[in-house]
Amino acid sequence: MIVWFGQQRPAMAVRSYHSEVKMTDSAILDRFAAIVGDAYAHRRPEDVVSFLVEPRGLWKGTTPMVLRPGSVAEVSAILKLATETATPVVPQGGNTGLVGAQVPDASGTEIILSLSRLNAIREIDLASNTITAEAGVILQHLHDAAHAADRLFPLSLASQGSAQLGGNLSTNAGGTSVLAYGNTRDLCLGLEVVLPTGEVLDDLRKLKKDNTGYDLKNLFIGAEGTLGVITAAVMKLYPRPKGREVAWVGLNSTDDALKLFGIASEHAGSSLTGFELMIRKSLDFVLQHAQGTVDPLQSAYPWYVLMEISSSSSAEDARALMERILTAGFEAGYVADAALAASIAQGDAFWNLRESMSEAQKPEGASIKHDISVPVACIPDFIDAAWQAVTAIEPGARLVCFGHMGDGNLHYNISQPVGAETADFLALYRTINTAVHDVVRSFNGSISAEHGIGRLKRDELIATAPPVEIDLMRRIKTAFDPAGIMSPKRVI
Amino acid sequence: MIVWFGQQRPAMAVRSYHSEVKMTDSAILDRFAAIVGDAYAHRRPEDVVSFLVEPRGLWKGTTPMVLRPGSVAEVSAILKLATETATPVVPQGGNTGLVGAQVPDASGTEIILSLSRLNAIREIDLASNTITAEAGVILQHLHDAAHAADRLFPLSLASQGSAQLGGNLSTNAGGTSVLAYGNTRDLCLGLEVVLPTGEVLDDLRKLKKDNTGYDLKNLFIGAEGTLGVITAAVMKLYPRPKGREVAWVGLNSTDDALKLFGIASEHAGSSLTGFELMIRKSLDFVLQHAQGTVDPLQSAYPWYVLMEISSSSSAEDARALMERILTAGFEAGYVADAALAASIAQGDAFWNLRESMSEAQKPEGASIKHDISVPVACIPDFIDAAWQAVTAIEPGARLVCFGHMGDGNLHYNISQPVGAETADFLALYRTINTAVHDVVRSFNGSISAEHGIGRLKRDELIATAPPVEIDLMRRIKTAFDPAGIMSPKRVI
Repeated sequence: MIVWFGQQRPAMAVRSYHSEVKMTDSAILDRFAAIVGDAYAHRRPEDVVSFLVEPRGLWKGTTPMVLRPGSVAEVSAILKLATETATPVVPQGGNTGLVGAQVPDASGTEIILSLSRLNAIREIDLASNTITAEAGVILQHLHDAAHAADRLFPLSLASQGSAQLGGNLSTNAGGTSVLAYGNTRDLCLGLEVVLPTGEVLDDLRKLKKDNTGYDLKNLFIGAEGTLGVITAAVMKLYPRPKGREVAWVGLNSTDDALKLFGIASEHAGSSLTGFELMIRKSLDFVLQHAQGTVDPLQSAYPWYVLMEISSSSSAEDARALMERILTAGFEAGYVADAALAASIAQGDAFWNLRESMSEAQKPEGASIKHDISVPVACIPDFIDAAWQAVTAIEPGARLVCFGHMGDGNLHYNISQPVGAETADFLALYRTINTAVHDVVRSFNGSISAEHGIGRLKRDELIATAPPVEIDLMRRIKTAFDPAGIMSPKRVI
Repeated sequence: MIVWFGQQRPAMAVRSYHSEVKMTDSAILDRFAAIVGDAYAHRRPEDVVSFLVEPRGLWKGTTPMVLRPGSVAEVSAILKLATETATPVVPQGGNTGLVGAQVPDASGTEIILSLSRLNAIREIDLASNTITAEAGVILQHLHDAAHAADRLFPLSLASQGSAQLGGNLSTNAGGTSVLAYGNTRDLCLGLEVVLPTGEVLDDLRKLKKDNTGYDLKNLFIGAEGTLGVITAAVMKLYPRPKGREVAWVGLNSTDDALKLFGIASEHAGSSLTGFELMIRKSLDFVLQHAQGTVDPLQSAYPWYVLMEISSSSSAEDARALMERILTAGFEAGYVADAALAASIAQGDAFWNLRESMSEAQKPEGASIKHDISVPVACIPDFIDAAWQAVTAIEPGARLVCFGHMGDGNLHYNISQPVGAETADFLALYRTINTAVHDVVRSFNGSISAEHGIGRLKRDELIATAPPVEIDLMRRIKTAFDPAGIMSPKRVI
């Protein structure tokens, strides 16, 4: 039998203990398998392999068993048994997380709990504008269901074809619609959660206002599976906008982008549904590596903004508002050039340029990435200061910076110098990471704006966050998961 | 010395213990006084009396001392000493809370910690659209500061002339602007909190996105002072709307109101900034008891809606949108009659009718009140079912129901029958309360939508919430406040 000490043991003790750990006791595994039935309890290497590595191949592990429960009651029974036998459990959704939380470690002790069979949309309530869905529903299917009901579910991610609602909630996913609609946390009204003890917290309520005690919901959201397993949620729906206008704007500086953001917010308020900042290099890479892409503007500019306006009234209203913003931007000298999408297809093409930027970095060699946020007003200064820090380490580094400027959130990525050895560049990974994150901290920013902590940033979080904050998080972890079975050594 | 067992002791044991408690040891009080200086440590009855009772006179208590710290360091020293000496501490802001949380109990052991001297607005950041203010800043002063900077701070309450930001945060205050801007929780980006141990959690960040561990911020918001003392916060600012349009709409039924809400949401999206439902009786009371008020419509209707549209573009845009909604409502037969405010003053007069409703109930005798929420779609059925339950108990009861329909939140108030004895009616308080809350629960609603739990609804929350929810809240309370010094016997 495995004894798992979770977070309570000092890190050194856990490490030395772990080196002695063997594969989980097969009698215990049989008990787990009996809960879901053999058809949904995978042990053979060929059946579990796809759960052991995330799509980029950066995180790999091993597991004695993948469990695919088909009901909340089965999830409950699994966690109850896990607490009883001190078996570590790692919940997994669409396996698109970027910080390693959902992938088992190398110890071979962590059971994977896949939520993929809990994929029912339980209800759409048009009058309350809510959709109640299970954790395993794929984000794209939520979009489709909302669309079929003439509603909008705004959460939009590059990985929405495979990411699942439970994972979106557990990581408080962000994406491109946060500016107007908020992140996953803001879209959630109620949760159903199975606690590590197997108890079920049924808080699937559709209430916009509920001041009855501590906010448990927001603890589970963003906890990356370390406090319990989210099995279902009530999410908000919105009216579908009647008009959408997309513009691709060339700018001479990030200062101009900030000023344009001020004008756009001032004019459009919550009708400003997208404001993405991109450096020229990001566009260069897309034009070079993504087939069929075209530069929307005649000349090159050092920075670009993709701006989207949505109108609840009409297409004409969206167009008029966009024109007012661009005119004001031109007149004030912040906008160097701009292209307005002439059709829905062209608007989609503009968005496609933005969404291809991550992928287009790959052919250019290794990349050192940062998912950061700072106060919106600090974006220009942050970009300058971080660039000074990076080039002091590697003068040939190439800045491939793009992201959700309206949220203060940038993907501040550094591609290796042209012609450099990949290994040499990656040897600088930690140095550059630390330098950029030090700049983030100097602006009172976040080292993980939307991807979470997982295993990737756990040590850094513990080392750099105020000790009192870490202490409070540990107290919560201990209070909710005293046996330490839920996704150990993730987040905290 | 006082020994306080907090939440860990069974309720009966705590109660019997309390009957033996005497006034807090004067040597300990001297140590508290030394932290803030004698000028800000009040002990004389005439100096503490205003802190002992809330404005309606429903909650009264006694205290050995009122402390008015002038800095975060002083708050920290007070809580450290309180933990050391196991002295219960009750934070108090503008003393406008409606559930008794901020008023000391009758034991004479609870020290009051008034935040009123921490009243600095530390910063307004126009580019990030944030205001950083201390807990003691009066809500109206926040409005004024935002207005002077050409921004909007949307949180609006009847008590905003005396309510303080710290109290707004601690109760997650709602009000009339929740529909478009959310409640206090949604307006807060960062907090500074003094923990019961005296440690200071400095999380005064301006970040719209930050996924670095558990959401501590939302635990303190709405905790009603039971987990720590909020000393400052970063709050969101918004562009001031360029146009505002207010309409007073007469309707034949709550079903029609729900359908009109659907049309308004569909047309206006986030430009719909107010949708208040009111029964005719509420208006009758206002017209009768509030000087200078006029019925906006020629005929009487059983129900009314006050609808507000805000436009980020122009006054004309707001007017056109409002006209489209009302036209659609007329054509569909949901709107019986409507008056559009012809001026800002008339719009304010419409709002004044709504805001006078609570006060106008007073001359009509005793009132049994409920601050409830249900899913928006259930509002009509809830009103019917609750009315059946109430009239089964008291056939002469008068329904004075008004509230934030767009949020699913109603103030479902019952005035005593005409000519009845007040005492006889109030004898039904608990019976009617329970009956209405049972109906709320049957709709999966909340028995405290925006006022909180405090002491008023603590027993009911504990008795009726799912035990696992109460258990988790208790674990959090114990983890954060092991000595049980913070606002004992409130919330949980």
